[in-house]
Amino acid sequence: MEAQIYEREKTALMFIDPYNDFLSEGGKVWPRVKDVAESNNLLNNLRTIVKAIRQAGIQVFIVPHKRWEPTDYQYWKYPNPTQVGIMERHSFAKDTWGGEWHPDFAPQEGDIIAKEHWAQSGFANTDLDMLLKQRGITHVIAIGLLANTCVESTCRFAMELGYHVTLVKDATAAFTPEMMHAAHVLNGPTFAHAILTTEELLAALPAQ
Amino acid sequence: MEAQIYEREKTALMFIDPYNDFLSEGGKVWPRVKDVAESNNLLNNLRTIVKAIRQAGIQVFIVPHKRWEPTDYQYWKYPNPTQVGIMERHSFAKDTWGGEWHPDFAPQEGDIIAKEHWAQSGFANTDLDMLLKQRGITHVIAIGLLANTCVESTCRFAMELGYHVTLVKDATAAFTPEMMHAAHVLNGPTFAHAILTTEELLAALPAQ
Amino acid sequence: MEAQIYEREKTALMFIDPYNDFLSEGGKVWPRVKDVAESNNLLNNLRTIVKAIRQAGIQVFIVPHKRWEPTDYQYWKYPNPTQVGIMERHSFAKDTWGGEWHPDFAPQEGDIIAKEHWAQSGFANTDLDMLLKQRGITHVIAIGLLANTCVESTCRFAMELGYHVTLVKDATAAFTPEMMHAAHVLNGPTFAHAILTTEELLAALPAQ
Amino acid sequence: MEAQIYEREKTALMFIDPYNDFLSEGGKVWPRVKDVAESNNLLNNLRTIVKAIRQAGIQVFIVPHKRWEPTDYQYWKYPNPTQVGIMERHSFAKDTWGGEWHPDFAPQEGDIIAKEHWAQSGFANTDLDMLLKQRGITHVIAIGLLANTCVESTCRFAMELGYHVTLVKDATAAFTPEMMHAAHVLNGPTFAHAILTTEELLAALPAQ
Repeated sequence: MEAQIYEREKTALMFIDPYNDFLSEGGKVWPRVKDVAESNNLLNNLRTIVKAIRQAGIQVFIVPHKRWEPTDYQYWKYPNPTQVGIMERHSFAKDTWGGEWHPDFAPQEGDIIAKEHWAQSGFANTDLDMLLKQRGITHVIAIGLLANTCVESTCRFAMELGYHVTLVKDATAAFTPEMMHAAHVLNGPTFAHAILTTEELLAALPAQ
Repeated sequence: MEAQIYEREKTALMFIDPYNDFLSEGGKVWPRVKDVAESNNLLNNLRTIVKAIRQAGIQVFIVPHKRWEPTDYQYWKYPNPTQVGIMERHSFAKDTWGGEWHPDFAPQEGDIIAKEHWAQSGFANTDLDMLLKQRGITHVIAIGLLANTCVESTCRFAMELGYHVTLVKDATAAFTPEMMHAAHVLNGPTFAHAILTTEELLAALPAQ
Repeated sequence: MEAQIYEREKTALMFIDPYNDFLSEGGKVWPRVKDVAESNNLLNNLRTIVKAIRQAGIQVFIVPHKRWEPTDYQYWKYPNPTQVGIMERHSFAKDTWGGEWHPDFAPQEGDIIAKEHWAQSGFANTDLDMLLKQRGITHVIAIGLLANTCVESTCRFAMELGYHVTLVKDATAAFTPEMMHAAHVLNGPTFAHAILTTEELLAALPAQ
Repeated sequence: MEAQIYEREKTALMFIDPYNDFLSEGGKVWPRVKDVAESNNLLNNLRTIVKAIRQAGIQVFIVPHKRWEPTDYQYWKYPNPTQVGIMERHSFAKDTWGGEWHPDFAPQEGDIIAKEHWAQSGFANTDLDMLLKQRGITHVIAIGLLANTCVESTCRFAMELGYHVTLVKDATAAFTPEMMHAAHVLNGPTFAHAILTTEELLAALPAQ
């Protein structure tokens, strides 16, 4: 582990999809991630990171998935398989509890909420890259869900765009342990600049 | 398997990184992909697909990785781990045999060569999306290497951009079988519209 | 004037910024565009085009500017001069009449509303390109305001992205006649594929 | 004129299209820009700026137009009017004198050459944004040709991407004085953060 690399003024936390449907008991997708999340101590790690990031004065970006509305995707020529599933499941439905922020992770004053992404990458078809530039951000730290879909695509895009990219392997979850393994052991090392535990991340943040 | 979906005028083959260093005996990366490639019958499948695509009158796009030059990456702030490795290994070095097209897959008259990509996605920092639009392409079929890096990132981007995306699971390779499994069983089904074998692809192409 | 080029299934109308602040008596920006708009018969032409487009079965896209909110731009490093002005004028303010659709141009069922753009181009930092692809659109027709800023940037981007681009010179306005001249005589001919009058556009639409 | 804003480590000069065809006696496009260029003292100003930028230790980016090759554009569905013209005129033809760098402005060791752009914007379908990020650049200064096409589109894109953008009004040219007026008086003030003369730019550069 190198010396601290996360300068306060140039680093942002990207919290991907902090919705009840993903993170709360009763959420539509929670049953599919629960086992991995619990084995990972996910909720506690997310709380710990968000608190430490705020204390360090680092900018929080919320990177939210499109909240489902009835007309979403329905006349699209090529919705992807996940989007076809959302049309049936209504994940993150707008104006429902499932599409609200998990209460521990609701945006606070000064946080920046990027435009909702339609598929996997928080950069695709949104203003995330421009908003990061307008804050002078060069280093992004990704937490949230899912490790091998939205988090991975957001980070693959971040790397292509020229950012320094950090994954936090116990601040995310997926449907199966092997998907976590794919994200952090097979694929992550090809594109991410750092793959840390929550504890390692905390040690690398600037003093408060 | 549904009825044919690949209209001649709207489909393109994207052949990713058909370099000697990847595909030929003596290539710098070949030893790392050889086992998977041979178990997959990769070279024969690539030959079969390219021949069938040309006979069907479908447009071929070559999607090439940046050929390494001595100054590449060296003053970059955040080269990714793969790029750091390329600085040492000189994969696909410009004006060397390793950076030449595999002789069976060199572009032919009428093929389109997109700009070289710096990292994983053939769309990032290149003209691939625009050139596909200028040909009226809506469906892309990806073959080449590596399954979980350049092919996967190119296809994740293609999906975000609004294309119909097809993976061909025995027309690619990776360093290990579990990376192939990650690409085609764990991740591919979340973003790709079709994941076919070479045989299934051939059956779905328009009659010649 | 060539024979009809606008196929129903491949053409979209992009109506840029149809807000009260731009187009209605009492709107914040209306006094600055009124003279050009009236000399151009703008409102009538917009009504005529929208009606004809709907009758022809062509897809309508609304391409809206960011509705101003109090925190917009305020911690940005480099807001542009127009954005600095918006911070003072509060143009298109959210939840105000000025930021509502002009009543004649409110979206109807089946219209697609792209994400709001922060600056000039309806493609920058939005989902417009992807949503056009998901409908199979290759030809875009731009109407709305301002001719030399949002309309021009949206169309410069559309051209770079590979679309066929049509300007309608009497279905837009600007602050001065010389800005209209710049948009349609000096600059438009370098990037737009067609620059038509409303009458010429109507003649080129498919029969109903 | 404010105090100096161009930090050495965060600023880049973007020299757009420094080809013989644009800037040299005998160049294909030179006759169309000669009058404006001479009234502007263009060549001397370009030389002065490039020298001062190098002495200040500021990074030079070359932002080159696509050098014409025989197959360029020919099977495109929607080449723009300028591209149709290039197919006839063969401007900046590859492997010809016209497509070589003007001898006073050839890249030097350490300069970065972005990928060639196909139309007007040096950012569209190229690696310019990523390469700027990899150097930590936040401020771009645009010089070269043409004021209302490539320079303007490159700078409209730069602004949308989140950069601080500077035009230099006597370090560019166009086909007519009214095109210069459109670029610097009508349009530039809507998107550029600074519009300077060469003299003003020199005064704002960091001490050597």
